[in-house]
Amino acid sequence: MPLDAARAEVSASDVLAASARLRRYLPPTPLHYAERFGCWLKLENLQRTGAYKVRGALNALLVARERGDRRTVITASAGNHAMGLAWAARELKVPVITVMPVTAPAVKAQGVAFLGATVRLSGNSYDEAKTHALQLAGQHGFRYLSAFDDPDVIAGQGTLGIELAAHAPEAVLLPIGGGGLAAGVALALKSACRSAPRASRRIRIIGAQVEGVDAMARALKGDTSPISPRATLADGIRVAEAGTLTREILSRLLDDLIIVREAELRETLTRLMLEEHIVAEGAGALALAAGRRVASRRKVAVVSGGNIDAAVFAQLLLDTRPRPPRPPRRRSADPVSRHPQESTP
Amino acid sequence: MPLDAARAEVSASDVLAASARLRRYLPPTPLHYAERFGCWLKLENLQRTGAYKVRGALNALLVARERGDRRTVITASAGNHAMGLAWAARELKVPVITVMPVTAPAVKAQGVAFLGATVRLSGNSYDEAKTHALQLAGQHGFRYLSAFDDPDVIAGQGTLGIELAAHAPEAVLLPIGGGGLAAGVALALKSACRSAPRASRRIRIIGAQVEGVDAMARALKGDTSPISPRATLADGIRVAEAGTLTREILSRLLDDLIIVREAELRETLTRLMLEEHIVAEGAGALALAAGRRVASRRKVAVVSGGNIDAAVFAQLLLDTRPRPPRPPRRRSADPVSRHPQESTP
Repeated sequence: MPLDAARAEVSASDVLAASARLRRYLPPTPLHYAERFGCWLKLENLQRTGAYKVRGALNALLVARERGDRRTVITASAGNHAMGLAWAARELKVPVITVMPVTAPAVKAQGVAFLGATVRLSGNSYDEAKTHALQLAGQHGFRYLSAFDDPDVIAGQGTLGIELAAHAPEAVLLPIGGGGLAAGVALALKSACRSAPRASRRIRIIGAQVEGVDAMARALKGDTSPISPRATLADGIRVAEAGTLTREILSRLLDDLIIVREAELRETLTRLMLEEHIVAEGAGALALAAGRRVASRRKVAVVSGGNIDAAVFAQLLLDTRPRPPRPPRRRSADPVSRHPQESTP
Repeated sequence: MPLDAARAEVSASDVLAASARLRRYLPPTPLHYAERFGCWLKLENLQRTGAYKVRGALNALLVARERGDRRTVITASAGNHAMGLAWAARELKVPVITVMPVTAPAVKAQGVAFLGATVRLSGNSYDEAKTHALQLAGQHGFRYLSAFDDPDVIAGQGTLGIELAAHAPEAVLLPIGGGGLAAGVALALKSACRSAPRASRRIRIIGAQVEGVDAMARALKGDTSPISPRATLADGIRVAEAGTLTREILSRLLDDLIIVREAELRETLTRLMLEEHIVAEGAGALALAAGRRVASRRKVAVVSGGNIDAAVFAQLLLDTRPRPPRPPRRRSADPVSRHPQESTP
């Protein structure tokens, strides 16, 4: 389906502009081949503040500076968006305020405060924190910056797609909460396909959600009523309502959306740590968990972040039943059979 | 001190040759800036088999093929060298045998077997496993490949230094067990300094050992008698005797050797996981622990590997006392003070 740039509030050219803006602040994150999964991983857990969210937040602040918008920015976030915004604000020497639910992981709340941002703990969920942030914005004339439903934020997250384009993936897997990352990356990569029409490869954009935390999956089917998301290891994508702008973009550009079971997510997260030596937070392992169902030789799963609490992390490892790692997905000669004089004890 | 190429059994040109050989098998590993440590990290935990050892092992097998040496290779290893050799053997479709002590971490012994190599568990330490491997080599006419005291292995490990050269570090920190990695990287980088004499920057090569596991530190002072190394989190560098060839190279090229306390190592390893989202094994955090004592704006610590057992990993996390992450090492404006109407709760 052609992209109607006139209708969209954010387009591929906004993503390219964001990419030019962010270049001097954020070097590209590594792309790592996870041999035992047969999947490439885009390591946003190694991004500044440990998650991709800094891209969108920094882009929003830079755009505001270009426009001469000097309002203080306020946001609500369960953690990573607040951390990204705090980092960006420190970098640009502007003030920001973040409202976080009291349920936010301690590591995230502390990270925000230590980056120098003002933190308010309020409400038991992201949505309650958001209500409070919107009230404050109204009272004080602050600019409320959504964690996902904002054109500047979406364009910023899309810069991850620009970094992937050179690697010509067949399929890109992304975790979906509000939908900002998937929308931005879809804009970046679907446009890259169109501008190179002779490229026979069409990049598939595939979203991943957890069962019971599937606001976007429902919204794309027409049910936009808020859900009561289940408790999940993937706290970073636990939202009650999908974004409006993101839903509009994803309804045009998303190829597939895979719902992952909580048990699959846990297993993938533990394997990511022990076999690939990558620390991911719950949402960070979601795309890879979904990717295990996708047959492709050039698939990339985005490890969206790595901010996991030590206690949660330790429990996952303790729950691990020791078992041999799986062999890599490649055939090889069997040297054992050539050495009958040697036997495996 | 000038490098006397005639005396050395391995030289910088061997490292360059190894680099050309390995290029098509092993892409460069990422270099990541750890903001909270103020240090660059070379991520060999993301290397194939999860450790740098595959470099030396693969180089040794490729050199053997070039020379027409068709003997079966046998080795003794506490884990990572065996894994690297097994991976290389699978890649080149040649048989290998590894003798591992029964005390080797389960994750490593299983990894070797699953890569298709023959595994013999024998002895309670690396040194006992080595004695057994040498016996088998004598009986069957196998080629015994040292994990560190071999010119081909040293040249292979040195390819890591070639990857670092372009980044012009001031100081490179490396964990030292037998000394193969440090010797190879020193050959690569000290030579790079000499061939660019106008470069005012001289690269310092700094080794790291754990207290009580300091065979190389003693050997460099003239005491080459075997030690009884203490138990340490850094099992990968727990050797009783330093290499002869590696000692000769390091006595000429090593600028400094830092002895790290076990408690410092533990703390660094946990912070590496929680703050930088990098899974390292004990020895993998050693160079960074030492780097915390080195003042330099362009220092690189090599994270040598990531193969840590789940139970050890979990215990480290459980021992963590929750505390706020440290602020990044950079000054920034304090937006809180500009917003007296907002207070941190």
